[in-house]
Amino acid sequence: MSRYAIGVDFGSESGRAVLVDVADGTQLATAVYPYSNGVIDERLPLPDRDVTLPPDWALQDPEDYVRTFQATVPAVLRDSGVDPSDVIGLGIDFTACTMLPVTADGTPLALLPELRANPHAWVKLWKHHAAQPEADRINETASRLGEGWLPKYGGKISSEWFFSKALQILEEAPDVYARADRLIEAADWVVWRLTGVETRNPTTAGYKAMWSKREGFPERAYFEALDPRLADVVDQKMSREIAVMGDRAGGLTDEAAAWTGLRPGTAVAVANVDAHVAVPASTVIEAGRMVAIMGTSTCHMVLAPDEHLVPGICGYVEDGILPGFFGYEAGQSCVGDHFAWFVEHAVPERYTNEARERGIDIHALLQEHAARLTPGESGLLALDWWNGNRSVLVDVELGGLLIGATLATTAPEIYRALVEATAYGTRVIIEALETNGVPVNEVIAAGGLADKSPLIMQIYADVTGRPFKLSGSDQAPALGSAMFGAVAAGPEAGGFASIEDASRAMARLKDLVYEPNPEATRVYDVLFREYVRLHDYFGRGENNVMKTLRGLRASARDDGA
Amino acid sequence: MSRYAIGVDFGSESGRAVLVDVADGTQLATAVYPYSNGVIDERLPLPDRDVTLPPDWALQDPEDYVRTFQATVPAVLRDSGVDPSDVIGLGIDFTACTMLPVTADGTPLALLPELRANPHAWVKLWKHHAAQPEADRINETASRLGEGWLPKYGGKISSEWFFSKALQILEEAPDVYARADRLIEAADWVVWRLTGVETRNPTTAGYKAMWSKREGFPERAYFEALDPRLADVVDQKMSREIAVMGDRAGGLTDEAAAWTGLRPGTAVAVANVDAHVAVPASTVIEAGRMVAIMGTSTCHMVLAPDEHLVPGICGYVEDGILPGFFGYEAGQSCVGDHFAWFVEHAVPERYTNEARERGIDIHALLQEHAARLTPGESGLLALDWWNGNRSVLVDVELGGLLIGATLATTAPEIYRALVEATAYGTRVIIEALETNGVPVNEVIAAGGLADKSPLIMQIYADVTGRPFKLSGSDQAPALGSAMFGAVAAGPEAGGFASIEDASRAMARLKDLVYEPNPEATRVYDVLFREYVRLHDYFGRGENNVMKTLRGLRASARDDGA
Repeated sequence: MSRYAIGVDFGSESGRAVLVDVADGTQLATAVYPYSNGVIDERLPLPDRDVTLPPDWALQDPEDYVRTFQATVPAVLRDSGVDPSDVIGLGIDFTACTMLPVTADGTPLALLPELRANPHAWVKLWKHHAAQPEADRINETASRLGEGWLPKYGGKISSEWFFSKALQILEEAPDVYARADRLIEAADWVVWRLTGVETRNPTTAGYKAMWSKREGFPERAYFEALDPRLADVVDQKMSREIAVMGDRAGGLTDEAAAWTGLRPGTAVAVANVDAHVAVPASTVIEAGRMVAIMGTSTCHMVLAPDEHLVPGICGYVEDGILPGFFGYEAGQSCVGDHFAWFVEHAVPERYTNEARERGIDIHALLQEHAARLTPGESGLLALDWWNGNRSVLVDVELGGLLIGATLATTAPEIYRALVEATAYGTRVIIEALETNGVPVNEVIAAGGLADKSPLIMQIYADVTGRPFKLSGSDQAPALGSAMFGAVAAGPEAGGFASIEDASRAMARLKDLVYEPNPEATRVYDVLFREYVRLHDYFGRGENNVMKTLRGLRASARDDGA
Repeated sequence: MSRYAIGVDFGSESGRAVLVDVADGTQLATAVYPYSNGVIDERLPLPDRDVTLPPDWALQDPEDYVRTFQATVPAVLRDSGVDPSDVIGLGIDFTACTMLPVTADGTPLALLPELRANPHAWVKLWKHHAAQPEADRINETASRLGEGWLPKYGGKISSEWFFSKALQILEEAPDVYARADRLIEAADWVVWRLTGVETRNPTTAGYKAMWSKREGFPERAYFEALDPRLADVVDQKMSREIAVMGDRAGGLTDEAAAWTGLRPGTAVAVANVDAHVAVPASTVIEAGRMVAIMGTSTCHMVLAPDEHLVPGICGYVEDGILPGFFGYEAGQSCVGDHFAWFVEHAVPERYTNEARERGIDIHALLQEHAARLTPGESGLLALDWWNGNRSVLVDVELGGLLIGATLATTAPEIYRALVEATAYGTRVIIEALETNGVPVNEVIAAGGLADKSPLIMQIYADVTGRPFKLSGSDQAPALGSAMFGAVAAGPEAGGFASIEDASRAMARLKDLVYEPNPEATRVYDVLFREYVRLHDYFGRGENNVMKTLRGLRASARDDGA
């Protein structure tokens, strides 16, 4: 008898459900719900009020998450023809840190009429970057107090993370902060909505809220030093009970069963993070094999049996990706976004016309032209910092750089240089990990870029000198969530006892492998040395021109406002 | 009774004649001849042979110059209705160094059937850049031998100059070199064609062939050290008789009179250089007022009563621009070309569509958008080295740099940053002159860019902190040549005794003056400091990444060839 599991992957623009066969991971149906309010970064979606948002804000509507369940799960059941009683479990993964303030019963403050017009009552999406002053204080205070957790996060935590966002709420909207009985990751909140049980997953706690299995959260004194009103944030508005990855958070409530068409009581897994569930979904259950989720940005994850401090990575968490390993995570904040920017802002019409005439995507056209170039032929080098640098410099105020242009430089040459720059960025991360004791022998790529662009994958292989393999599923996060759903159901229900077992049964790679071409790698070694020199010169304080430029830009805009 | 003069300006793509009233410089008619073979940089224009050119070559067809006289002079006579007997003189100006090998009677070697398929027999246009190895040797040898003339040219002579090109002919085509009875500037060659008299003008001799009034050419021993076969180049193929600026070279031959419709014997002035004749045509006959000819590239000229070494300028020549002054010249190799590159290679279709729909030039549209930005608001900074750097680094192998881009960066922001970069480049030149004793109190701009773009002029005024005025003629070089034609005719024929007299009568400025805005200058002072730091870091050898990139590009192309 066949058994099935459903994974629901909450992205930045949409939510997606996949229904898979537990026996071998075959995807039977998939459905996408584009969030009706998308990313809210200009004004709140209110019919009767005009509330505009400052720069760097990025919010979401929590009801879009509920609508995702309502729209997608019935669709995959219908399309697959699978009997709901054969669906043994459901798992979800989310962007992180994406968090919101709610009441004691889980009602988002954004739904309360009296707070609905306050932006701080809404969900703060991962890419909400307006809490940089708070992140700066969190780092300064941690550094001053010698907090032991700081080095685990590469020495710096991000404006995107949980306490940066919480502190911003406290400082800018103390009434919202006071009214929030709970501050919670959206990942945990949707599981709460499905099961009626508030759980806290170990992944976001570990990677985004400075929690560790051995030490717990930072101490009360640290939070008090940040702001006395924040001293008891963990006990008042969060929880010290952190669930175990792969556990069953609870069963579907009757209400959630009605939303989804699944049976009440269907096992729901403890929440997880999109990139992290993609690791076992990409066959990785051992050390030395990096998974790179390549989309608008890239998230790099690698397992190691032991603990190492690696300056500049996002962090490492024991049992944070898979039980029994230290899970190391790093990131590049501008990858697909980089190429999208280029296409929108710097590609002349003869290319857009040609793409239209031939009926192909503009990226495919530029890659076709760029593929005719050999390494070094463009004469260009770029620093991939159009959106700052996450790893290993952890500095959102860095800016982009392109060097070497001549009057003969073409758009495909620049496009290729930008691709190469992101590949150098990946190599910097790999070398930082290896230098500090975390081997990276090969890379498994997942995500939109990996599937769509042979040129990009070959450049990455050539630049890093490592084979690039491809995750077998084009929906690795949703597959990973379904796998965790099958683990939450357990073997007695036809699922699995562990995520490793689920991975061995349900995950695979594509046959295609991008092997590094030694001749290309030889040229890229030269270019990479130049990249590193510019990276260090502009990124480590020797020449802070990028920050001066950013400061002048901010002043000019303030004057103009 | 009215008297008239004609100036013929030989540009890179076309030749242009202007007929003016000698009394006040009023332009009565203008005519342009686009060279039928334009800039020859891919293959020779031969019907029966396919001869392709290596990179960096730029040739012209000498017959295009004769056709310019044939097409334009009759046209301005016809259009103005002026009686040819009232035309007292004709002057010409040319790009420089643009040179060619000819026989003893002035026949270009490119016209000889047996040499026609040899690219070295053709005219080498100023922007022929393939003689860089020869320029390098010329500089190394001069430096090693302690040649006294070297510092006068900023310490480095260019691949564009006369002996670089001559040495390239000798080395790569010794048969062409041997067959050349004369090596001559195209400027002097067209005067020879008009008058039947071979003259050598002091401007190209001084600025492009290391000649000076006091020292003459470099000594035989120097040429011998370069290559024994070159030892007697001056005596064998050039001339030590250098004419005096403003003198009459000769009168029109019957043949040239037939070409042009002018009377035989009409006075023809000694040849001159386009940028240099624009100086008196822009009212400048005294020290301290820089003339900047702003087109695809910019040429800066300023007079001073005394001699100063200024590192990195193109050179200074006594009596080289106006008699009685030391004429200092500097240059930027990428100005209008920079913006043209940007429009061709980096402007997305929504802007080109908007320009088309509104029926305006794409540059005008981008400037309209860019004009809404305040200094610093783009957050961008560029090094204007897309075509290398002429002054003050004298290095064609430098490349472009753009720094500070974010995912919000737009095309008009980049456009503005490129304009600003060229203005910083001008400020570097002005400061180099002033630091070394050559004051620059204001700038008179001439050329296409100056007339077309108020935004560009205002940015230049703000960046340099100096007023920018505009030459009264939109054809300053052709007007200047007509003025020299009137001086060649002399006062007895209704002309002038000196170019100063001609300038006072015939030249004027536009009423419009761009005054620096002190608030903008304050911001640009900050940006300029950052520009200078990057300029020195990448341009003076601390980080030679631009050359490494150029080397890799060359290797990649060689491998691919």
